[in-house]
This record gives sequence, C-alpha cells and structure tokens, in this order.
Amino acid sequence: MSAAASAVDFRLDFDRRRRTGLDEAVFAEGKSVDQLIRILRAARARGSALLLTRLSEEKYRALGEWTTHLDYCEISRTGFFDHRPDHAEAPRVAIVSGGTSDGPVAREAERTLAFSGVSSASFLDVGVAGLWRLTACLEAIGSFPVVIAVAGMDAALPTVLAGLVPGVIIAVPTSVGYGVAAGGETALRALLASCAPGLVVVNIDNGYGAACAALRSLHGRIAPNLKLAEV
Amino acid sequence: MSAAASAVDFRLDFDRRRRTGLDEAVFAEGKSVDQLIRILRAARARGSALLLTRLSEEKYRALGEWTTHLDYCEISRTGFFDHRPDHAEAPRVAIVSGGTSDGPVAREAERTLAFSGVSSASFLDVGVAGLWRLTACLEAIGSFPVVIAVAGMDAALPTVLAGLVPGVIIAVPTSVGYGVAAGGETALRALLASCAPGLVVVNIDNGYGAACAALRSLHGRIAPNLKLAEV
Amino acid sequence: MSAAASAVDFRLDFDRRRRTGLDEAVFAEGKSVDQLIRILRAARARGSALLLTRLSEEKYRALGEWTTHLDYCEISRTGFFDHRPDHAEAPRVAIVSGGTSDGPVAREAERTLAFSGVSSASFLDVGVAGLWRLTACLEAIGSFPVVIAVAGMDAALPTVLAGLVPGVIIAVPTSVGYGVAAGGETALRALLASCAPGLVVVNIDNGYGAACAALRSLHGRIAPNLKLAEV
Amino acid sequence: MSAAASAVDFRLDFDRRRRTGLDEAVFAEGKSVDQLIRILRAARARGSALLLTRLSEEKYRALGEWTTHLDYCEISRTGFFDHRPDHAEAPRVAIVSGGTSDGPVAREAERTLAFSGVSSASFLDVGVAGLWRLTACLEAIGSFPVVIAVAGMDAALPTVLAGLVPGVIIAVPTSVGYGVAAGGETALRALLASCAPGLVVVNIDNGYGAACAALRSLHGRIAPNLKLAEV
Amino acid sequence: MSAAASAVDFRLDFDRRRRTGLDEAVFAEGKSVDQLIRILRAARARGSALLLTRLSEEKYRALGEWTTHLDYCEISRTGFFDHRPDHAEAPRVAIVSGGTSDGPVAREAERTLAFSGVSSASFLDVGVAGLWRLTACLEAIGSFPVVIAVAGMDAALPTVLAGLVPGVIIAVPTSVGYGVAAGGETALRALLASCAPGLVVVNIDNGYGAACAALRSLHGRIAPNLKLAEV
Amino acid sequence: MSAAASAVDFRLDFDRRRRTGLDEAVFAEGKSVDQLIRILRAARARGSALLLTRLSEEKYRALGEWTTHLDYCEISRTGFFDHRPDHAEAPRVAIVSGGTSDGPVAREAERTLAFSGVSSASFLDVGVAGLWRLTACLEAIGSFPVVIAVAGMDAALPTVLAGLVPGVIIAVPTSVGYGVAAGGETALRALLASCAPGLVVVNIDNGYGAACAALRSLHGRIAPNLKLAEV
Amino acid sequence: MSAAASAVDFRLDFDRRRRTGLDEAVFAEGKSVDQLIRILRAARARGSALLLTRLSEEKYRALGEWTTHLDYCEISRTGFFDHRPDHAEAPRVAIVSGGTSDGPVAREAERTLAFSGVSSASFLDVGVAGLWRLTACLEAIGSFPVVIAVAGMDAALPTVLAGLVPGVIIAVPTSVGYGVAAGGETALRALLASCAPGLVVVNIDNGYGAACAALRSLHGRIAPNLKLAEV
Amino acid sequence: MSAAASAVDFRLDFDRRRRTGLDEAVFAEGKSVDQLIRILRAARARGSALLLTRLSEEKYRALGEWTTHLDYCEISRTGFFDHRPDHAEAPRVAIVSGGTSDGPVAREAERTLAFSGVSSASFLDVGVAGLWRLTACLEAIGSFPVVIAVAGMDAALPTVLAGLVPGVIIAVPTSVGYGVAAGGETALRALLASCAPGLVVVNIDNGYGAACAALRSLHGRIAPNLKLAEV
Repeated sequence: MSAAASAVDFRLDFDRRRRTGLDEAVFAEGKSVDQLIRILRAARARGSALLLTRLSEEKYRALGEWTTHLDYCEISRTGFFDHRPDHAEAPRVAIVSGGTSDGPVAREAERTLAFSGVSSASFLDVGVAGLWRLTACLEAIGSFPVVIAVAGMDAALPTVLAGLVPGVIIAVPTSVGYGVAAGGETALRALLASCAPGLVVVNIDNGYGAACAALRSLHGRIAPNLKLAEV
Repeated sequence: MSAAASAVDFRLDFDRRRRTGLDEAVFAEGKSVDQLIRILRAARARGSALLLTRLSEEKYRALGEWTTHLDYCEISRTGFFDHRPDHAEAPRVAIVSGGTSDGPVAREAERTLAFSGVSSASFLDVGVAGLWRLTACLEAIGSFPVVIAVAGMDAALPTVLAGLVPGVIIAVPTSVGYGVAAGGETALRALLASCAPGLVVVNIDNGYGAACAALRSLHGRIAPNLKLAEV
Repeated sequence: MSAAASAVDFRLDFDRRRRTGLDEAVFAEGKSVDQLIRILRAARARGSALLLTRLSEEKYRALGEWTTHLDYCEISRTGFFDHRPDHAEAPRVAIVSGGTSDGPVAREAERTLAFSGVSSASFLDVGVAGLWRLTACLEAIGSFPVVIAVAGMDAALPTVLAGLVPGVIIAVPTSVGYGVAAGGETALRALLASCAPGLVVVNIDNGYGAACAALRSLHGRIAPNLKLAEV
Repeated sequence: MSAAASAVDFRLDFDRRRRTGLDEAVFAEGKSVDQLIRILRAARARGSALLLTRLSEEKYRALGEWTTHLDYCEISRTGFFDHRPDHAEAPRVAIVSGGTSDGPVAREAERTLAFSGVSSASFLDVGVAGLWRLTACLEAIGSFPVVIAVAGMDAALPTVLAGLVPGVIIAVPTSVGYGVAAGGETALRALLASCAPGLVVVNIDNGYGAACAALRSLHGRIAPNLKLAEV
Repeated sequence: MSAAASAVDFRLDFDRRRRTGLDEAVFAEGKSVDQLIRILRAARARGSALLLTRLSEEKYRALGEWTTHLDYCEISRTGFFDHRPDHAEAPRVAIVSGGTSDGPVAREAERTLAFSGVSSASFLDVGVAGLWRLTACLEAIGSFPVVIAVAGMDAALPTVLAGLVPGVIIAVPTSVGYGVAAGGETALRALLASCAPGLVVVNIDNGYGAACAALRSLHGRIAPNLKLAEV
Repeated sequence: MSAAASAVDFRLDFDRRRRTGLDEAVFAEGKSVDQLIRILRAARARGSALLLTRLSEEKYRALGEWTTHLDYCEISRTGFFDHRPDHAEAPRVAIVSGGTSDGPVAREAERTLAFSGVSSASFLDVGVAGLWRLTACLEAIGSFPVVIAVAGMDAALPTVLAGLVPGVIIAVPTSVGYGVAAGGETALRALLASCAPGLVVVNIDNGYGAACAALRSLHGRIAPNLKLAEV
Repeated sequence: MSAAASAVDFRLDFDRRRRTGLDEAVFAEGKSVDQLIRILRAARARGSALLLTRLSEEKYRALGEWTTHLDYCEISRTGFFDHRPDHAEAPRVAIVSGGTSDGPVAREAERTLAFSGVSSASFLDVGVAGLWRLTACLEAIGSFPVVIAVAGMDAALPTVLAGLVPGVIIAVPTSVGYGVAAGGETALRALLASCAPGLVVVNIDNGYGAACAALRSLHGRIAPNLKLAEV
Repeated sequence: MSAAASAVDFRLDFDRRRRTGLDEAVFAEGKSVDQLIRILRAARARGSALLLTRLSEEKYRALGEWTTHLDYCEISRTGFFDHRPDHAEAPRVAIVSGGTSDGPVAREAERTLAFSGVSSASFLDVGVAGLWRLTACLEAIGSFPVVIAVAGMDAALPTVLAGLVPGVIIAVPTSVGYGVAAGGETALRALLASCAPGLVVVNIDNGYGAACAALRSLHGRIAPNLKLAEV
C-alpha cells in the first residue's frame, strides 16, 4: 500500500477560549484512532485540556494507554482529557428532557457544561403527553436563567415550557422515534415552527452545541479587544 | 374551439349514506362552475341534498340563481344545497383550535357535522404556548366523547390534550405559519410523531375529513347487511 | 469511566388509565436493558402491569429472570408484564392487512388490544391488487364497529375499505417495500391523501397507536371529573 | 433595449415519426408567443402538422390569425395545427379517471391519441373510494388492450384496475388535491410503489406522455432500418 | 413466549394468470423462512409453479430441502419453484443497462420474462457518458418491439434511446450511485421528467415489474369475459 | 350567507410579560381585518399596548381609523399599537445581515427590540463572500453581548462570526435567493449544521423570534414565584 | 409611518475585479427600486460600471431616467450600467441549451460573459431526446475550451456532451418543466449524479454563476500578491 | 443454482483519453470481485493502466494476486493498476479541506490528479469556524490557478475562499456530520446557494470528479478533430 498522506491534517484552536470563551473540543466521529492519538499528543505537548465528543466506546478502548488520562462517560460518549473540573458551584442551568431515551443527549449537554465548570440540574422524562410530570417540577425549572430542553418525536415540551418560564430556552431535538420521527427531523422542524416566542434551536442530538450556547449566555461576555491581526 | 367532451364526467354516490353512514359531498376545488351546476342539477333531479366543500366565494357567486338554494359560509367555504339541518340536539363533539388563524378549518369541521345534524362546541385559540388558555377549558373539553383538535405550526396542542382526556382525539394539522411550517407539513408530521397514545390524524386543513371520522365514531355503526352484489 | 448520572430518568404514568382509559406502556426501543429492569422493578413495586412495545428479542433475552414475568411475542415484539388478560369476550375490532409482510404491525395492534381485554379478528393479506381477496371477507369486516387497516407500499386497501364499510377506519401505514416505498412514507402520504371520507391515520408501523385509538373509540368515555389540580 | 439574440432557438424534429412513430409536438409552456409563431411558420413552410400542448387559453388568443389554423381545446389546452384527424376507427384505448377534476389530463391523453388517428373511450370519475363506480364498467374497460388510468390524491384506482385486467396499464398521477397530495407527488409515489404487477407510470399530469406510450404499445413497431448515420 | 398467531397470513392468487396474463409471484423480502415454506407447500399442494423475487442467498439456503425444487439465481435473487421454462423461442425483448452495477436489476427482468417463457437479449454497460457504446448496438436494440432500459445515477440512457427507437420503452431506475444519487431517487425523477415522449417508468430496482409490463405489452390481451362475480 | 361563527376566536395573553418577560404580540398574517380590529379593541379596553407583526401594507391601510394609533413600519411590516417606546439607552444588541435583501428581517428584529425598549446597532450587507466587509466592523460587533445574525442563501456569515466573537449568536435564516436556496430552507439547514459552537437558530425570516430570544438573554430573568395555579 | 432605517444597507465591492478577476454585480431580485437607485448613484460616484442581474422588466421601467444609462435585455433580465463592452474578439465559450425554454438562462450567461468582454457562440435546442440535433453541431462545440451547458427536466444533455468533448463543462440546470421537474431540482440532481467525469454544476437557472466560472477558467489567474491586510 | 449470465457486462472506454483528456476509471462500488478481476484482465490484455475508485479495503484484499499490480491507498480507497506516475512537476492544484474528517475525499482528489501526473498541495482542516486557520495559508492557496475546496456540514469554507482568490474553485461537499448535515445534502445545497460568484460544485464526496474537472481546466484542450463517425 502507498504511504499515508504526510500533510498536516488537523489544526487545534488553542486560542478559542480567549476569543469566544469556549474551550477547544474534538468531534471524534469520523476521525481515525490514529488521528485522535496524534491530536491528544499535540494537546499534551501544549499542556492543554480537551473535550472529546461523539467518542464511541469502541474507539475509546482503542486509545489504549491514553484512556488513563480520559474521564470518559459511555452514556454521552464524551471524554475529558487532562482535565478534572470541580463542581462546587450551585447549578446555573436546568436540563429538561421529554423522555427516557433522550438521556444521552441531555447528558452530553451536562458534561459539556461540567467541562467548563458550570453545574446543571436535570429534570428528565417530563414530556407533555403526561403534563403532570412537567407541572410537578415547573417551579424548580423556572428558577434557572438558562434552560436546555431536550425532546424528540413531536418535541412539544420546549414549546409548553417557553410559554411558562422567562429564561433563555435552548431546544435540542433528538433522533428518538421511528417512522415520521425521521431521525429527529420532525422534532427539529416542530421546534423551529413553535409558537412560543424566543425559543432557539440547535442541530439534532447536539447537546454539545446547546451547552456552548448556554455558556455564551451565562458569560454575557464581549470580545476581548478584537483586532484585525488576531483574526 | 373544439366541442367539449361528451363523456359523463361525474358520478354522484347517492348510496353512500346507506353504506357508510356519511352523506355524499362535493369537493368544489378543481371543478369548473359548469361542472358544479351540472352536479347540482343532478342532485336536484334525485331530490338529494349535497354538502359542497372548498367552494371559493368567487365560484359561489358565479353559481348565479343556484345560490338561492345554498346555505353558504364564506369562512369555511362550505355550502349546504337543498338542506337546512336543525341543531336542537346538545353538542356531541368538541372542536378545539390552537390559534385564531386555524378558524376556517375548525369551522369546516363544524359545518360538516352540522350538515349531518350533529352539534358541536368550539374552543378556539387555546394553543399550549399559553397553557392557561387550555387549562381554563379543559374540564369542558373532557366532557365530550369525541374531540377534533385543529392546530398549525408545531401543533403541540393535540398532544397535550390527548394526555389529559379519554375521548377520541382527531387531530387536523393546518397550513398556518411560514418558513419551516411548510404549508402544514411540519404540523402534520409532529402530530403523527406524537408521544400521546391514540391520537389519529387527517390531511392538512381537512376539517371535512375530521368531521367524517367523528361521525363514524359517534355512529358506532356496522355495515347494513353488506353483500357482494352491493359492492 | 465516570459514574452514571444519578438523576431520575423515567417517570411512569400509573394514573393514565383513570385519566385517558389507556394503560401505561413502555416503548423499549432506545432504552437500555438497565433502564428497562429499573422500570419493571418500579412497576412491580406499585403492583402495576405494563405493556412493553418494540422490545427486540435480543433485549428480551437480556432481561434474564424478569422474562419469567413477561408474556412475550417475538413477531410483534411486545411483552405483557405481570398481566394475563382473558379473551372470553367476542371480537370487537377487525384487523385487516394488505400483505403478509404487514403481519408484525397487525399483530402489535392485536396484542395491544388484548392487553386491554379487547379481542379482535384478523383478515390478513387481502390487499386490493387482488380484489377478490378483500371482497371475500368484506361482509365479515363490515360487521365490526372499528376496523384497523394495515397496509404498506401504495396502501390502497384502507381507501377501498372506507368506501364500503361504515365503521371507524384507523389506517396504519407500514414500512414494507423498497425504492419509492421509502420506509412507509409513501403509504403514509397516500393514506392521508385518500379520497375516502373519514379515514384516520397514525404513524408508520404504529400498531400500538392504532389500537389505542380503537380503544378510545370503543370506550366512548368522557373525562372523569377532571380538575385543574389533577393536571 | 438591446437587440434580441439572433441565434436559432428551436429545432423541430420533422423526422421523429419515421424514427419513433410519434409526431413532433410542441410544449407551449415557457415559450413566448413570438417563439410559438415562428415555430408555426416553420412547420407551415415544411407542410407539417403540429400538436401543441400546454397552450394556455391566453396564449392561444394571442396567436391572432394563426388561431384559424388551430383546432383548440381549452379543457386540455391542446391545439392541432394544420391537421384534422378523422375518427372513423373503433376505440383502441380506454381512458379511465378517478375523479371529475382529473378531466383535463384525461382529455390531453384523448386529444394526443386523436391527433395520431387513434380513438379512445373514456370512463371518468370511477375512483375506488366508491368501488361500485368502477365495477360497473369493469367489463368494458377490460376489453381494451391498452388502458390509460388517470388519478390524483392517493391514486388507488390504477392499482385495483391492474389486478383485474390484462392489458397494458399506463398510470398518470395528477396534481389534484391539497395538503399531502403535494401537487401530485403523493399520487406519483403511490403508483410507483403499487403492488399490482406491470403498472407503468409517467410524470404528473402528463396525459400527453401516456398517450405516446400507448401509441408505442399499439404500434408494436421496430426501428426502420436504423443506421448510425441516421442518428 | 406466546404462541404464534394462528390466522391465515397469506393468500396466493392462483387465478392471476387467467385474469391478467401474469403468473403469481412471491416477494420474499420481509417474509420469514417459515412463511416462505408454508407458501411453497401451498403452491405444491395446488400443483402450481411460483416465481420468487428478492430471495436473498441467506434465506435461500435456509429453505433446506425445498431448494432442490428451486432454480435459483444469486445475482438477481430470483427462484423458479417447480418450473423449468424452455427458451427455444427467439428473443422478443431487449434489456439495456447503463452500467455494470445495474446488472442484478437487468437480470431480474430477464429471469421474470424467462419464467413466463419469453426470451430476451441483453445489452449491458452502454450508458451515454460514452455514447459510442450505445450507438454500436443501436440497430440491434431498435429491432425489438419492447425495450427494458435499466439505469442508475442520472439515468440519461433511456431518454437518448427513446428518441431513437420506436418500441415500447420501459425504464427501470436503479439504486446504483452515492450522494445525490440517493438510492435511485434521482434516476427515478430524471426518468419521469424525461423529454423523450412515451417513456414509462417503474419503481427503483423493479426489474420484476418492468418485465410484467413488457409481458402485458407483448400479450396485447384483453380481459377474458370479465364478470362482476369474478372480481 | 350563513351568520359568522359566534364563538370567541382569540384570547390575548396580557399576563405574558409577568410570566416570561415578553410582551404579547399579534401575528397578523392569516387573520382577517375584522379579527385584527376586534383584537385592537380588546387591547384598548385593557389599556394594553400590542406589537403587530407580519402586517402587510394592504391590511394596515384597511384598518382605517385604527392606523392613527399605530406606529407602522412598511419595511418590516410591524406596528406598535398604543405604544411609543423611547430609545435613550445605548444599544445592547448588534444586528448583522449578510445582504441588502435581508433588510426587512433585520428590521423586524430591530423593531421588536425597540418595542421592548432595547436599542440595537445594525451592520448590514457584510456577507462573507466579500470578507473585508465583515472584518471592517468586526471589532464593533464583538463589543455586544448579544448578536442577531441574519443571512440567506448559504448563510455562511453567522458561522464565521461565531468563531470570532464571544457573545450570544442568534442566527436567522432568510428566504432570500432562488433555486436551491429553496425559500430559506438551505440557509436554515446550513446554520443548524454549522461547525461554529454555540450558534442557535430560529425559523426562516423570524426576526421577531430572534429578538425575543435576545430579550430572554439580556433579561437573565428567572420565573416570578411560579405556582401551579398560575399555569 | 415610521422613518425608514438610516443604516447603510449596501456595500459594493469595487475591489472584486482586482482580487478575483470578476466585476461587481448586483442581484436586483429582492431589492427595492429605491435601493437600486441608491446603488446606481454610488457606482456612478465611483465611476464604476455595474452588471445588474434578475432585473425584472417592471423594475427596470421604474428606474426612470436611470434607464438611459442601462443597456437592458428583457429576455435575460440583465442590465449593463455605464458600460458598453466591445465584442471584436472571437468567441471563447460555447453555450449549449437543451430546449427553447432554456433560452433566458443561456442568455444570462452570454450577457455576463459579454459584460466582461468575452464573446460566446450559442447552440440552442439541441437536447438529446433528438440526438441528431446535438451530433450535427458536436464538432463545433468541441472546438471551445469552455462549454456552458444549460438544460432542464432530466438534463441529460451535459452528460452526453461531457463524454464527447475535452473542455471544461459547466452545467446549469433550469427550472423548465412541470411535475417531478420540481422547479429544476430534478435537473440539478441528475447533473450532480452524472456518470460523465469532470462535469461541474451551479445553482438552478444560474447563468450568471456559470459565466463567472467560465471566466475563472479562461483567466487562469492566480492571486495578485494577496496579503492579509487586503482581506 | 443457475449459470451466471453470459452477456458481456462491462465495456471499458480505452479511447476516453483521446476524446476528453481523461483516463478510464473504474468505480468499484457495486461491482463484484469477479467483475473487477475480469475488468483488470481486460485492461492488462490491452496494455492499459486503470484508476480504481471506491475500492474498499476488503474488496482490495479479495483481489488476491492482482494486488501486486495495484498501488492502493486505503484512506482514499483508490488503486492505480499497472501505473506508477512520477511526481517531478511542481504542484498545480491546491486542495483545501474544512475539517480533519474531510481527509479521505481530499485524498481521492489528490490521487486522481496524481494518476494523471498532476501534483497538488494540500491545506487541510482550515474551516472558517476558526478563520485564522484559513487566513494563515491564504496567500499560498491564492497562488494556484485551480483550487479544490472540500467541506462538509455547512460548507462555508469554499464561499469565503471564492471571495478572496481568482482561480477556478471546485467545491466538493462531504458527508461528514450528523442530524441536518444529512449525509452531505446540506453542504451540497449550501455550496450551490453560495453568494460567491463562479463557485462550481460536484456530487457529495466526489473527490474523483473534482479532480477530473481540475484536469479539464488545466488542459485547456479542445476536441481532437471530432467527427461524427467517432461518436
């Protein structure tokens, strides 16, 4: 077989935190184990921590000795590399999910927040097909300035929630369901068509992105003396 | 110009009521005024009443003298031909709608029921983005054995309703909305993907079909000694 | 690996029967074996029976000793937990299917009805591409007040049926077929576009939902003195 | 304004009949009146007859004096230019339609056949939602070697027909309907997914194409000594 | 586990040949091995031959001793049960394919014709991206009254062909390709939108259906004294 | 004609501000002039201001004397009823748009913010196909805690922006463009698939919703002592 | 009414030619007459010529006195502002179209090239459904290093062409057709799925973009000493 | 089992280079190992080299002794048969990719160019969500007359690039991503809707096609004395 390409095939963004307040993260899906190891090595060389997302359990195991530096969660398929955040702080984000099967996505959001040192409180399986489940914890949910609402199928939960609480509502459609659920497409579109004002939406199953949006909102930051040369 | 086709181009189903319990109805959209008048004439000759649906105001006016035999409603674009049902009976169906703009579809259902002599009660603009609007009339809605729930955009209302009341819930998605609402496609798919068990769905804006389904449920009928020769 | 999330991740709806007349059911797809066992344990603790749907044979076997309390059907992938309904009653629902391959969906409907104590009669492989198959049992089908019609591909069967019998017709599109059948999408859309009045539709392969709709229609119930506090 | 392009912008295929047995036809939609007149002039110069399709009444009228050479039908929007076919022959094709609104498409097929000197018999508004309408003329339809079946919405008619008669069945989906009918897309897909073997399909509303296919089947021709140089 | 459903779950159409001129065929995809064996047994009991389509090699092998009665072709996944047609006759259908990968579909058509005793001639890998491949065999193709044209991706071949030969052209889109080829959807739509008049289309990969259409055209049959009672 | 429906067909949510911090707004599209006037009258009776969105110029003029109480903007099609907000405050939101044609949507966002007393600064026509346009005002944009980024066609602007500034980025796809732009669908999907972390999205052309989301983020509010009875 | 927004709402890219070799062009669709006039005024102030595309005849006329500086073509809806290119040069691009109705798109490409001083030769209505039309001018087409191939419906022409000529082939799908042609979507997808190697594609009806791509290829330019500061 | 079809099922285009300047290539996906070996044998017999694309590692290994004549690259799944190009020449094409996961597609383009003796320079993982990555190598990229830009998800990179450099820009969407990324469909559509003028697009993941287009542009060839007889 021919030699592998020698070109540099990844460029980590170690400056992202300074610019945008978010840490560099590595989307592991579609990357080979060889590429992942080279990325971890580069981060180690810089002394930088990394958040890995969509890291399948199979790929995680193939990382061999590198796993000793990874705090891995198999439910959310996330890994914290060279980083052990502390959780002393009170929760600042509510994570609400419609059904039990939405759990992995909710947990990806939870872990992404945790990596950045932000605690969250989870309210799972409170979909509106059994409205009492939601009303029972509505007061608690309403006490958070930012809510991440995870829901699949018809995704009615975030709409009901957005009519009741004043905080930022970041909706995450999930790929849960069958038939017309269409891998989360229906949940996504229902959320975007929602009549509840001020609901915002991220990609299907994108718990990571929802957490990043939550961080942007919590930080309330403006750009650190941006200059053209920095772009 | 060449002579018009002489072939018979409509065949009314005057026997439908006996077979299925539903009256013959004429879908006026896509039919010419000339065709409609020939249809009315044929019904008159048989001494049969007819329900006309999707009859635009413009087409209605073009029917000329025939309008005197039509009880026309411009909101729902329906007409009762040679028929004035009485409404003495108590309402047996609840018609619930999410928003003001869903009105014409709700009214098409109401009129179709009325044509068959069934009264209904309307609960309009009670979408779940403002949940108090629904809870305020929930007890009343729950007292009906059949509920027609009309909703556009994300169509979350029927899902919430189906988790709370025991009756038959017939959901009608509407074409209200813009962008991803996509002419009712999103409402339709959200309804079909609903987690609330036992919700059934009809075509977008199909108030007529929902009313027919309600009639089938109310009648609780079985076939009148069906024989092959009758097919 | 990090510890699993400790948050409550399921909330069973033991009150659903009182509110809506339908029993609580658990959609097993997308739930882990660990979650399923915790759910069964919770139901046992409450002394409640449960219907499990979409329970693959593989997952069923992984339930270990819990299988002894499950009446499992591998065709429909349903399980009755702590429940053995009796079937003394005469059938009240006709289940009609277009082709042999629609069997599992038809059977999911049959089992869901059976769990609630309702018997049904099946008329399988009577698709209208061979019309004699349907006409041969039309009289029998017409004698039921509720018909569940299961069909894939072009799903013409429920349309023909709805023009001939007066009962409630609940159509279930199936994912049978290839190419433009598109996993049931074409069957679904053909059913919703049907010219036969009063046909209602549920999600693709949703035999469970069709049975729930049948139960709502058979029960003819109204809400049990609904109060806001109960919501 | 700048001068119009001087390039030749149409090339008529006066040799098509010899090669394929079909006459040259001009699709008038999307062509300007100026272009149409130049096309008619070119045909006249060759002494050739032409079939015009999708010729709107408005555009027809704008052709001015040229209309005197056109046998125009406003229902099907077709025109015969410099051609008056005789219809002495017995009908060789059955044209069957599901509903009254499918009429224009059925008539486009009828006119295209007539232009080529083939007579047809029409059986309109015999959709299977009222099965008796079809069974009443089934024997007559079955006596034709080629059947053109025109149907919109769920388009179940051709499927039922193809299970009952042995001839060639060419199905034409129509854009009749609303909501999920989606401009004929659902009818088209249902027809292609049909379980009835040997059904063939053309584009939505393409009565012209169906007629051409019928002609190919009736002719049973093989190529006239095709040579590479003729290509 | 619970006992399997006892209802009759298949109904063979042994009368199909008399009605439509086509033999009964069994679509094996989605049927269990158990169901297939029961079907073969029923055919054997009637003394009827059967064509099996979409019979995977794995399922074929699972049929055990029944394979001795099956003439199986693993390329087209078809089986002839209790039937060995003779091929003495000269070919009456041309089967043309665009690329090498379209082979299995072309062969399904070939086998279906052979089962009915009709021979065909194949012209494979003659797609128009290399036009000389087609022109080299154009004269031969044009000598057949019926042409089955199999093509994937952009499916331009049948369009070019239909402009050059006079016979019936039945186009079969295939699922060959990637990206926008979309499992054959693009080929299907391109074929239906073709500018070549009289092209007819069947479902994606439906070589069986194309062959049935070819048989309908070759037979030129009309219905055998159809009576209502026979329907 | 029959009398209009007498049922209450709108229910204003005067309590929304207390619950969610957002003012009640009326989506005028799909409402009749008669309905709008009844809504204005009801608001007047309560002494409440209203924001009207999607109010076409034609409908605005039809409101007659009521226009004297409306501050109307024909570009954004918004109206302030009985409300003249003051704009003394410094801008707190940046509104950025990709092209000149995105103007009306950007302005709907601007007006919605203004109605709630929040000023904004606009940076229009800075799409990344001419990157210098964006870099020239990047420092200014980065100084806002919330950015609304409006873009059609391929909608690459918000992605580039989100990689450079730390604030909340609310992306609004617009229906600008033709062909594959597909009424904003492509812009919407590109935004949701964006690799830039923390980007959130609203419905196509939904400047109103983006502004509401911005208000939720600026308010940083939690629910005002929510009680079940208030739901 | 409220005062119009005062923000700068367009930013012309007068430097584009130096960077990319292409002139600034203004897409007139979606811009108001007022905006267009302000743009023309700004260009005049800079002494810059402008190409206007998608300028409807109605909008053109509304430009009043500014039309005297516009060389307008109503077929392609393009305008040359303050610019009269000379065409002395021999044609360097072939523009080929499948049908007469593709003319406006072909002409938009021709005009865009002409604005940049590049002549082209047109070969119109040479679609492959009548292959002789193409073969008759194949030698001429093959003598150009760049070919723009414009085609709607099934868009088979560019595929056939790309297998025969060695030049750059830029395919433009058009929105010509009906039904499955779907506004050019089918042509677009067929072109992208083409088996002919090296075919490249632009948006539906995008004659302007195809011409720009042709210019890039003809120029064979590299960037003029690009510096970061210039970005 | 029945004997395999004896018909010729592949026809190599050994003349393609003379006509179009591109070498014959074999798309291995969908071809059996048996077919591939017969193809290699035919090429060997002609003394022709071949490029194999989409050759999975599994299939590669199954080729047995033939692998000794194949220069195989497992990243791009390409093989050079009987051909070892030399790379002395300076790079003439820039290959730019948005993310690490786009690598295999970028490498397929690189290998296709290499097979034809054209060297390229790669700039990988320079997506615009971290704009500094692109600006850092912009000057280098701008020095190439042809740029192949490979990008998935929202595919914003080629748009930004096309606004900055003057060369030919061939964009390749990739199937990288999840949810709305939809297997590359969103990237594809975003690229086609791009506002950057002169961007051209090929099928999803089609690195091979992009390289062929680059070759057409670099060659600047016209047809070699094309004659009808050669077609």
